[in-house]
Amino acid sequence: MRFRRSVLGNSEQKVYDLVIVGSGCAGLTAALYAARAGLKTVVLEKEVIGGQISLTATVENYPGFKEISGPELMRLFQEQAEAAGAEIQTAEVSAIEDLGDRKLVKTSSGDLEARAVIIATGSSPRQLGVKGEKELIGKGVAFCALCDGPIFTGKDVAVVGGGNSATKEAIYLTKMVNKVYLIHRRDKLRAEKSWQEKAFRNEKIEFIFDTVVEEVVGRDRLEKLVLKNLKTGKLSELRVDGVFIYIGLKPNTDFVNVKKNPNGTILTDECMRTSVPGIFAAGDCRDKCMRQIVTCVGEGATAAIQAYEYVEELRGKKT
Amino acid sequence: MRFRRSVLGNSEQKVYDLVIVGSGCAGLTAALYAARAGLKTVVLEKEVIGGQISLTATVENYPGFKEISGPELMRLFQEQAEAAGAEIQTAEVSAIEDLGDRKLVKTSSGDLEARAVIIATGSSPRQLGVKGEKELIGKGVAFCALCDGPIFTGKDVAVVGGGNSATKEAIYLTKMVNKVYLIHRRDKLRAEKSWQEKAFRNEKIEFIFDTVVEEVVGRDRLEKLVLKNLKTGKLSELRVDGVFIYIGLKPNTDFVNVKKNPNGTILTDECMRTSVPGIFAAGDCRDKCMRQIVTCVGEGATAAIQAYEYVEELRGKKT
Repeated sequence: MRFRRSVLGNSEQKVYDLVIVGSGCAGLTAALYAARAGLKTVVLEKEVIGGQISLTATVENYPGFKEISGPELMRLFQEQAEAAGAEIQTAEVSAIEDLGDRKLVKTSSGDLEARAVIIATGSSPRQLGVKGEKELIGKGVAFCALCDGPIFTGKDVAVVGGGNSATKEAIYLTKMVNKVYLIHRRDKLRAEKSWQEKAFRNEKIEFIFDTVVEEVVGRDRLEKLVLKNLKTGKLSELRVDGVFIYIGLKPNTDFVNVKKNPNGTILTDECMRTSVPGIFAAGDCRDKCMRQIVTCVGEGATAAIQAYEYVEELRGKKT
Repeated sequence: MRFRRSVLGNSEQKVYDLVIVGSGCAGLTAALYAARAGLKTVVLEKEVIGGQISLTATVENYPGFKEISGPELMRLFQEQAEAAGAEIQTAEVSAIEDLGDRKLVKTSSGDLEARAVIIATGSSPRQLGVKGEKELIGKGVAFCALCDGPIFTGKDVAVVGGGNSATKEAIYLTKMVNKVYLIHRRDKLRAEKSWQEKAFRNEKIEFIFDTVVEEVVGRDRLEKLVLKNLKTGKLSELRVDGVFIYIGLKPNTDFVNVKKNPNGTILTDECMRTSVPGIFAAGDCRDKCMRQIVTCVGEGATAAIQAYEYVEELRGKKT
């Protein structure tokens, strides 16, 4: 994968109409719409362009593409946003200062000034929070089948979770590993029916229901998991070379000073306006009804057009 | 274009989990999600599969496709929904009776029973409402450049309106016609900047601002338009062979008995629930912040998953 991007120049304060924080599907769609509307727009990304979707093996429910890999879809989004005139830069945002008609965006590579800001930072994988987990991240504990799956070719792995992500990634892993244990704390999956059916038909997947991981054990590499059956209370051990954790997401909103829910998701109205004028939010960092590519693109576009109208209004005030 | 669909069988009442009324981008995305979620789903369409987008020459702002024709994009949506298991049928819905846990969907080809219904009927072009217009529809008065443009190859036409549609379709028409007069009642366009710039650069387009059409004149075919300058009050005549009207849309919601705005758009919450349990709405028939493919797909998917949860809950009550 070739992701073109430049690093934000140091010690130089650039001025933009719109700064978009995050380059997932919401951020890149916002960039496409904002650039087409004539806003001088930059997208700031601290890690991988494409966000969560870039870590998704197969996307089957984005209309227009029967089946496409997450990274390939996000490459198309990126190319289209850049062709429309949006910049994409590497920088981690640490804070956004609201100076009224201007916002100061503080980043790891210097500050930027913007008339409007869209927060599209998405969310990050939740960890199990059990003994041994943190120490073994990258040594058998993983959060992305697409990224780390090939390391476990021919081996036995576990997937923890029961939603769409856990189920899809378990299926994906069977293409390379010997066996997948799908460990879920409930007695049935929460994934879409079509993914459940695919998983149940897959002979390489063994389901361990009503069960949680109590401990992750290993010296230099993961050796085994300690499991607990929630119905019987019984502990058992499961020897695996890898464990992929898909138990939900945490919104990346610590750095933003707008109204949020206790769980950290940003509160907006239906037009993506946050509690601070000129700051908008779109995508999985928002409090919302459904978290899907299709909802993120709509929110990104809506936030961009609202930002455009906000900036135009500021311009009107000045002249 | 090849649009596969069967006609709903007469005098036979079929039972579905979900009936989706309308096959535009909201309806087809809802069908994709509902079918994937395991709902027995039918989409009812009275006219052209793909709705308004099927009448759009060029789509440049649906992420994933730098440029694609509306009908081609909708063909991809349709194929994907059908591959997931959704049916698409020809029928015009005249009423939806709410029988509590069941809805009776009355159509031109017999009645259907459904547990849940999604209204995704979009909206239709508004007419000017001036003398001569109605009589000359199809005889020079048109609402779809893609459909009717080729009829005017080498001739002079007018486009009425100043938004995205009017501007885009004026540009599209220059590929075949001799000249396009863009008639707009204001002194500037409302279209996205990038479309405005393309239009201003196009030598075949002449702009007539501050002007409305007062009358459409012609015996068997359109001969000329009577124009009125709103600033001077002066009347003038413009000889054209065709006029394309792009002055907005009217929601297709007359047949639905749920809470609506005075303009006819359906009121929903953010999860696409209408005032009647089990009836959802998505897309341009809704009261909403922005009308774009990207917002329709998000709403269609959200309505489908809400309908799925509603139907699952009904099933739970029964057992």
